[in-house]
Amino acid sequence: MACSAGGGGAPGSPCGACKFLRRKCAAECVFAPHFCAEDGAAQFAAIHKVFGASNAAKLLQQVAPGDRSEAAATVTYEAQARLRDPIYGCVAHIFALQQQVATLQMQVLKAKAQVAQTMAAAGGGKPSPAAVADGA
Amino acid sequence: MACSAGGGGAPGSPCGACKFLRRKCAAECVFAPHFCAEDGAAQFAAIHKVFGASNAAKLLQQVAPGDRSEAAATVTYEAQARLRDPIYGCVAHIFALQQQVATLQMQVLKAKAQVAQTMAAAGGGKPSPAAVADGA
Repeated sequence: MACSAGGGGAPGSPCGACKFLRRKCAAECVFAPHFCAEDGAAQFAAIHKVFGASNAAKLLQQVAPGDRSEAAATVTYEAQARLRDPIYGCVAHIFALQQQVATLQMQVLKAKAQVAQTMAAAGGGKPSPAAVADGA
Repeated sequence: MACSAGGGGAPGSPCGACKFLRRKCAAECVFAPHFCAEDGAAQFAAIHKVFGASNAAKLLQQVAPGDRSEAAATVTYEAQARLRDPIYGCVAHIFALQQQVATLQMQVLKAKAQVAQTMAAAGGGKPSPAAVADGA
């Protein structure tokens, strides 16, 4: 998550965050590289509502400059998820994925049991270790 | 996430959040039912640092009282995850689960292919539809 040509559009124009905050965008603005003039203001609005501008700035400042783009993206994602779902936020996504993992683990077990059963029925022999102990 | 006997311990003692904020805990304190006097202060410290007390209060107030316990738990989880991992926060958990889902999906496909292969080798017949089309 980075702006192609810095935060602002035209030279001197504010980045998306400063545009939202209606303030002058300083040369060293911590938000500018990550919140573009175009769509950054809407993204920053979510961050402002959920985390607050000051907390978000502190959060970015405590991360190495090379990691700030990722941090800005994940904070934006969390903020937008919390606005969509005020009870669970992005934890709803975690619950859904945990459910999907449990379902898939059951499917793997079932399919492996079926391999073993088919092999036993076919040859009366034992299934190969690879057939039953593969992965999981 | 709820305190067994309200937020404070002894009557008149502050809940975990108010203890952290060093303020009097009002009867209608929005944090009290969810941040116990015992371990609530440490949990609230993370929330205070990441979201700010005022944003957290607003967030709980906009949720129906019956859902606030879940909201407090997910906000606490997000705050603690962000302090542990300032770049990715709880999104690191989402990435790990997405990776696990991809790995399991591969295992399911592989096991199903093996079932089909074993059945074909055994009887020369087609595998039953259930063997190949079971689940996702």
